[in-house]
Amino acid sequence: MSFTPVRIGLIGAGRIGASHASVIARRVPEAQLVAVADPRPGVAADLAEPLGARGETSPEAIFAADDVDAVVIAASSTAHAELIVAAADAGKHVFSEKPAGMSLAEIEQGITATAKAGVAFQVGFNRRFAADFRAAHDAIAAGRIGTVRQLRSVTRDPGSGPADPDVVPPWTIFTQTLIHDFDTLNWLNPGARAVDVVATADSLTAPGHPTLLDHANVVIRFDNGAIATAEASFAAAYGYDVRGEVLGSAGMVTAGEGATSSMRLHDASGRLAATAHGDVELMIDAYTAEFAEFAAAILEGRTPSVTGDAARAAFAIAQACIESYQSGTRAKVQG
Amino acid sequence: MSFTPVRIGLIGAGRIGASHASVIARRVPEAQLVAVADPRPGVAADLAEPLGARGETSPEAIFAADDVDAVVIAASSTAHAELIVAAADAGKHVFSEKPAGMSLAEIEQGITATAKAGVAFQVGFNRRFAADFRAAHDAIAAGRIGTVRQLRSVTRDPGSGPADPDVVPPWTIFTQTLIHDFDTLNWLNPGARAVDVVATADSLTAPGHPTLLDHANVVIRFDNGAIATAEASFAAAYGYDVRGEVLGSAGMVTAGEGATSSMRLHDASGRLAATAHGDVELMIDAYTAEFAEFAAAILEGRTPSVTGDAARAAFAIAQACIESYQSGTRAKVQG
Amino acid sequence: MSFTPVRIGLIGAGRIGASHASVIARRVPEAQLVAVADPRPGVAADLAEPLGARGETSPEAIFAADDVDAVVIAASSTAHAELIVAAADAGKHVFSEKPAGMSLAEIEQGITATAKAGVAFQVGFNRRFAADFRAAHDAIAAGRIGTVRQLRSVTRDPGSGPADPDVVPPWTIFTQTLIHDFDTLNWLNPGARAVDVVATADSLTAPGHPTLLDHANVVIRFDNGAIATAEASFAAAYGYDVRGEVLGSAGMVTAGEGATSSMRLHDASGRLAATAHGDVELMIDAYTAEFAEFAAAILEGRTPSVTGDAARAAFAIAQACIESYQSGTRAKVQG
Amino acid sequence: MSFTPVRIGLIGAGRIGASHASVIARRVPEAQLVAVADPRPGVAADLAEPLGARGETSPEAIFAADDVDAVVIAASSTAHAELIVAAADAGKHVFSEKPAGMSLAEIEQGITATAKAGVAFQVGFNRRFAADFRAAHDAIAAGRIGTVRQLRSVTRDPGSGPADPDVVPPWTIFTQTLIHDFDTLNWLNPGARAVDVVATADSLTAPGHPTLLDHANVVIRFDNGAIATAEASFAAAYGYDVRGEVLGSAGMVTAGEGATSSMRLHDASGRLAATAHGDVELMIDAYTAEFAEFAAAILEGRTPSVTGDAARAAFAIAQACIESYQSGTRAKVQG
Repeated sequence: MSFTPVRIGLIGAGRIGASHASVIARRVPEAQLVAVADPRPGVAADLAEPLGARGETSPEAIFAADDVDAVVIAASSTAHAELIVAAADAGKHVFSEKPAGMSLAEIEQGITATAKAGVAFQVGFNRRFAADFRAAHDAIAAGRIGTVRQLRSVTRDPGSGPADPDVVPPWTIFTQTLIHDFDTLNWLNPGARAVDVVATADSLTAPGHPTLLDHANVVIRFDNGAIATAEASFAAAYGYDVRGEVLGSAGMVTAGEGATSSMRLHDASGRLAATAHGDVELMIDAYTAEFAEFAAAILEGRTPSVTGDAARAAFAIAQACIESYQSGTRAKVQG
Repeated sequence: MSFTPVRIGLIGAGRIGASHASVIARRVPEAQLVAVADPRPGVAADLAEPLGARGETSPEAIFAADDVDAVVIAASSTAHAELIVAAADAGKHVFSEKPAGMSLAEIEQGITATAKAGVAFQVGFNRRFAADFRAAHDAIAAGRIGTVRQLRSVTRDPGSGPADPDVVPPWTIFTQTLIHDFDTLNWLNPGARAVDVVATADSLTAPGHPTLLDHANVVIRFDNGAIATAEASFAAAYGYDVRGEVLGSAGMVTAGEGATSSMRLHDASGRLAATAHGDVELMIDAYTAEFAEFAAAILEGRTPSVTGDAARAAFAIAQACIESYQSGTRAKVQG
Repeated sequence: MSFTPVRIGLIGAGRIGASHASVIARRVPEAQLVAVADPRPGVAADLAEPLGARGETSPEAIFAADDVDAVVIAASSTAHAELIVAAADAGKHVFSEKPAGMSLAEIEQGITATAKAGVAFQVGFNRRFAADFRAAHDAIAAGRIGTVRQLRSVTRDPGSGPADPDVVPPWTIFTQTLIHDFDTLNWLNPGARAVDVVATADSLTAPGHPTLLDHANVVIRFDNGAIATAEASFAAAYGYDVRGEVLGSAGMVTAGEGATSSMRLHDASGRLAATAHGDVELMIDAYTAEFAEFAAAILEGRTPSVTGDAARAAFAIAQACIESYQSGTRAKVQG
Repeated sequence: MSFTPVRIGLIGAGRIGASHASVIARRVPEAQLVAVADPRPGVAADLAEPLGARGETSPEAIFAADDVDAVVIAASSTAHAELIVAAADAGKHVFSEKPAGMSLAEIEQGITATAKAGVAFQVGFNRRFAADFRAAHDAIAAGRIGTVRQLRSVTRDPGSGPADPDVVPPWTIFTQTLIHDFDTLNWLNPGARAVDVVATADSLTAPGHPTLLDHANVVIRFDNGAIATAEASFAAAYGYDVRGEVLGSAGMVTAGEGATSSMRLHDASGRLAATAHGDVELMIDAYTAEFAEFAAAILEGRTPSVTGDAARAAFAIAQACIESYQSGTRAKVQG
């Protein structure tokens, strides 16, 4: 290429970190994976070396590296905020997986630190980069459905739940899963702000383990009058399912299709479409596009299309869901 | 035919009454339309005579007629309960459009009166007779998706609202429209009972006319843990839209497809499916099947598959929605 | 009804005759089934009586009956032509299952006899009455796809073939099955005439029994330049499959969808649509509509929308297919 | 990466060459675009330099370059064969766009030259690398549909034809377009060989310019009894359309879906899916996968999955189509 790729240091070599490493190294020419950090001995190197990068055992090694322009944070969620600040303080551009913090205050710290350092800050709301959701957004933004009035966003995961339900961090369904839907709903209702929510959730796969909320339906009111529903399940036997629907005064857009391709097998039992069973399988092109955006924004010296403000706005809804779930009634979304 | 058809008297020659008259007269061989009553001079006769039936101007003429075995009530909703009781008292089998009353007490009166008279009592929950919803139900009942956990039911009407929004009876969206969804959700979650609801609704097409709630999202909790969402809009520019979705522990069923046929027109703008724009257009086969069931139940001397109990259970949810909307928080569904 | 229904005598109580009897008796208010004839003792009566009609053992009893206005012929194909002429000579309106004869000369006799008798003559090209094909036709007729250039019509039957392949009449695939496709292609290419064909066919389920051609692909050239393909199989394990596709200068229409409803079952194996496995299951609404048209044409004293000319035009293509198959090369369609 | 990418020299900077350059440079990490050759001054450099490669004005410069391991030929079709041989003689691995020659003899020369040189030889049958077609193939290969009996492959291009129809090389529809379908049909009917064909084609967009055949329907018989249809049009107003369908004794697979994403826009006119309007738009992932296969085969020292034999087998069908078109009757496919 005639440009110098953005040199990326990745923090976290878990399942999604491994996927991101491969995507960055192999599918985003504007980016170059140079290092991966993971505290587990050898894990980072095993991932990084076949991809032409080096392994490190601490984030600090990434922050200190002269050959790292930008950091991608795929560590555990509780560490995100601290890593964002540290990366910004080291002068690195920052891409963080969602959530960008475990509280609004934490997210605010990341926004402040990256702004002060003058670095790019992008959050991993990958659904914005999926072709179908993007087409839905563009149709809405172009006025094709008129004024937005009623929305739905769904995330379902095929996992049947953890072996030990009590190890799942509380509120995971709101802060880790539905946060994608909250951002999607904010994004598909351009210019509107969430006002309040009412959250209904339960532990249906492991009754008696109330911190493992595995099914949730959230209703959100927006300041333009629109009413949205967000739904999540951690136990969708049929696959990984991400869908959206927006009704406006002039029409509706829908997005999301679990089928892995247009192939259909017709036999005596009927017509069968294979469905995606993992997030990486379903979203690989969206992951690619979000890292391409991150690299392009850095190369062009501009703000990425998904910023800390989006992270804050989505987290504010998740925060209100926790309150609503605890109180049993409607809760305001912090402005 | 070798059987004697059930002789039907229809009360109400409005839009849906006219459709029911034609369906009964032309599409249900087990039934014979013999009379139509409507208070507006000539309206009943104009509808009835081309269909081989006679016009009347009062329900009493129907109740008194020796050649009427069964009454179909398609009058205004506020009159339903009284007409059900009067029909039962006259010894006629009763089919009533939904709702079967404007309160649980009214519905109870109908249940009691028809039970006492020993006549059949069926309520117009036509979605149970639509081929796709029925197939969904049968798959659930057969255990194909395991334990029901998360449901959705949607009703959208293309009407852009009345010329005068203040003439719409309050709570129409709950008691007239979403009541179909409430029954559908009850039916698709076999054996479960709704526990409580939280209703979010607004007047989006006519802001400032708060009695015209034209968009609503309701979340219902069931006693088996399942969480359901019911959504309605009175302003779906793209057509009449009725859909359902049920997630269970082993899979999901979906039903509802607005396309009027499998024909697709492909041109420079893309691939286009025509969508249904009216309830009759979308549901004509379901209307036919519900009247066939009514006639068959009478001929066979058995209880129809949709009874007053279903009407009561669905209305109890609508009632709770009104309370929830008024209080702004969750409301219990009366057992 | 305020009209006198057309009184129908049905000839043939086989599989399709039984379906037609039920459709006429139960689903077409403008028609009344009064008699069914079948030479097998008791068969006609067993079918007719529960439908309120009488059984006869000979077509002549139908032709002689004063209470029969119109005859529906669902006897074996080889008898069609003779029965059409006899019915016309008896002054009865005639609906005949396809083919309307086993040769162009036979079909011509039916056209002549019915014209001379001044009775209606309709042929059972039911695909013209299926909602999706009709919508395709209407879009073409309205100019939505411009000039027709390339067409496809498919018929597949789930049967795995007869126990004894040698009892299947020769050329069945052309004269009984693909004749539907030939008519469909004529109809979807309005105003054009088939010029020549080249037929490729084989006995794939019963190799060595060459008279049982069970798979065929036919290419037809029309006088407007359009090129069409017709395909048939007698061994579609996945169901009864009827599809059409027309490319024009401005777009394309497609029709045909084997799914029995919009219900989809999603489980670990993917997303499954149930498919129709029988012609009656798939085409019941089309059968109903074709008999409604027959009755309406008689009541209105007009020509039915599918006439003997259509039968002749479709058979001419089937005839050319036989020639093409025998010669191994292209054969002209008789004008 | 921990491997040394295959260094690619591209010959031809036309429309598809430009697409291939970008795909190789940006989407295939196992490959590195090092040079592009095009005789038009500056054209190759303008394409190559932003992609980090150099421009050349002659293929010879590519063949002579020490830093080129493999050549991708996207020059005009008539030059393919000569370039393949020259590349092989220079010891370069060869990827050639289809057709691999303008005659079976030419293709044979390429096969011989590459075999003698011991270099990889892959032909641009990209449909084999499209996810849906590959899934169809895999289902067939796994026996999911039993014995293959009836096939269809379609290619439609939205182009309304050239300004001057007489500049289109004769037989383009067979040797350039349908050759994709012929290969697809060979591949989806594993182990079978085409026996004979009958081709019907016409100049419908430019009547009177008989060398511009812009619509064609071809029927192919295979030695396992299967009958296939291949259809092409150069004037599909609705988009770029590539579809396949295979009926077997136990079921059917279908592949191909022109919609650009799962987004659907529902408005008063119905439900609209955007369709792809260009080959690059529709097939970009397939192009990526075919070059990934080429690079992988070279790196692993193995034969690519699509070889010169496939090119010869597909061209033999195209050749027979020309004969069939000229003679008006069936033509044998050369073994």
